Amino acid sequence: MATAIVNPLVQEILDLVGIFAFALSGALLAVRKRFDAVGIVVLAEVTALGGGLFRDLVIGAVPPVAFTNVAYFTTPLVAAIVVFFWHPRLARIRRFVMFFDAVGLGVFCVAGSIKALNYGMHPLAAIALGAATAIGGGAARDVLAGEIPALLHPKSEIYAVPALLGSALVSILAVAGVLTPITSSLAALLAIVIRLLALRYGWRAPLARGTGSA
Amino acid sequence: MATAIVNPLVQEILDLVGIFAFALSGALLAVRKRFDAVGIVVLAEVTALGGGLFRDLVIGAVPPVAFTNVAYFTTPLVAAIVVFFWHPRLARIRRFVMFFDAVGLGVFCVAGSIKALNYGMHPLAAIALGAATAIGGGAARDVLAGEIPALLHPKSEIYAVPALLGSALVSILAVAGVLTPITSSLAALLAIVIRLLALRYGWRAPLARGTGSA
Amino acid sequence: MATAIVNPLVQEILDLVGIFAFALSGALLAVRKRFDAVGIVVLAEVTALGGGLFRDLVIGAVPPVAFTNVAYFTTPLVAAIVVFFWHPRLARIRRFVMFFDAVGLGVFCVAGSIKALNYGMHPLAAIALGAATAIGGGAARDVLAGEIPALLHPKSEIYAVPALLGSALVSILAVAGVLTPITSSLAALLAIVIRLLALRYGWRAPLARGTGSA
Repeated sequence: MATAIVNPLVQEILDLVGIFAFALSGALLAVRKRFDAVGIVVLAEVTALGGGLFRDLVIGAVPPVAFTNVAYFTTPLVAAIVVFFWHPRLARIRRFVMFFDAVGLGVFCVAGSIKALNYGMHPLAAIALGAATAIGGGAARDVLAGEIPALLHPKSEIYAVPALLGSALVSILAVAGVLTPITSSLAALLAIVIRLLALRYGWRAPLARGTGSA
Repeated sequence: MATAIVNPLVQEILDLVGIFAFALSGALLAVRKRFDAVGIVVLAEVTALGGGLFRDLVIGAVPPVAFTNVAYFTTPLVAAIVVFFWHPRLARIRRFVMFFDAVGLGVFCVAGSIKALNYGMHPLAAIALGAATAIGGGAARDVLAGEIPALLHPKSEIYAVPALLGSALVSILAVAGVLTPITSSLAALLAIVIRLLALRYGWRAPLARGTGSA
Repeated sequence: MATAIVNPLVQEILDLVGIFAFALSGALLAVRKRFDAVGIVVLAEVTALGGGLFRDLVIGAVPPVAFTNVAYFTTPLVAAIVVFFWHPRLARIRRFVMFFDAVGLGVFCVAGSIKALNYGMHPLAAIALGAATAIGGGAARDVLAGEIPALLHPKSEIYAVPALLGSALVSILAVAGVLTPITSSLAALLAIVIRLLALRYGWRAPLARGTGSA
């Protein structure tokens, strides 16, 4: 249904930006948990590549791109080295990392749903897989670090919702036959902007009745 | 070896009953952990679809049915919405949910081992895969929620054992050449009844010597 | 590129030694956590087969050998039974178990990277997959038991590093065209010896600056 709708080189550069940002977040969490160098590398790799790996196994894109494109698994290594040596400075530019993490979120949800559509998945399944691509790595990072995934609880701003909206827009555009490089970039931008606004204004997902913190 | 031995429509209805019951248990745990709406949906989906997803990846049934049959991933969404709005009432009918969870366990272990046999797996592997189908989603639910999977520790009544017995009976029936809609229904019933009896009479798996609570 | 470079029977015997040792470590952790008989079996199976299962799903070797070779999933069952009945004695011979665990680590990282190369993976990806084969089961064991994977934090001696070195040597030998039964055995031996030396002398991976225990 959908074809390669973004210039492959542009796509790969965006992917690597997202991978680098996700890897930074994984490596920084490892430092905060006082993990050693191995823990920093493992958490960087898992955060950056976990979501795409899950998507590729599900759609049958085997071996997953995480293991066939050398840049995909060396980029987290670079992020881990950066964090290992300069993490006190990075902690100060936490806002910087959150910005790139939002970029990664937007790029990954759109790239994930497009790839799912390219493999013939139903548009509804493509929404789920796009969101899983964007949030899967962070969930695996948190589980390995012994924490409950941030996206599940109300202490953190909405994360899965912007990913779902970006993926949903891609599927809608594809069904309408107007999925182009420009419209898919707009879908990524939508997810990024919503995530940044959520961070700025503290948007959180609602709780079920009677489970408030009071 | 085995063929489609249950009327496909009946099979799908039973599957959806199991999916709905498992999704309720995931969503209710999310509410108990004070997760937000996103956490409720994610835990409902993971609990309901995780086991079958694992089985399908292992036997090479890609893309997994969880992502190809729209009813399979919209049903947990319905369960999540029900829990979000009416969870105080559901908590009161906990016994009701445990009953359907037992039905899900029985249906899933039988459906899982039959699908594994249909994909040419060894009867012993089909037992393991049938049990994994039935217990995998609940294990993933507990790990994501930051809890040790209930099936591992002696605080909860036996859960994996009825699933293993149901799957084992399916494999034995298949090897004996008498796997029919009726006999496979009996295998599901066996697992369901053993699970319900375990809940009723507090049956627990034995501990290794010297590790009792005393 | 690489072919079957080790006598298949020798390979399988070494694999089963590694599987048995890994299964013992999983079952012993289950006993320490006071899990029941089901928990002991599940943790034995996951520890012994988890890493190879991940590798096989990634390289497309489906169904994974864990489910096609009956000896692979009955061996952990034997280990679980041994631990269930005789764990107080095994605790005394902890050094013995650590030795076989090191053997498993060496055998698994080499066997994993060779299998990845045989499936046409890039030599760099084969290093990652060889290491993942060796460390994946233990990581899954720890997550299921509610612990942070030992390989991530500095309380335990280096574990991933010897696996990476063994896998890297295999890839280098393959690229150089000198991967033979003898050289690959040397690669396994390298990983085993480094792991045993790490245990003997308390070698740990470095921490990032400013995160020391002081």
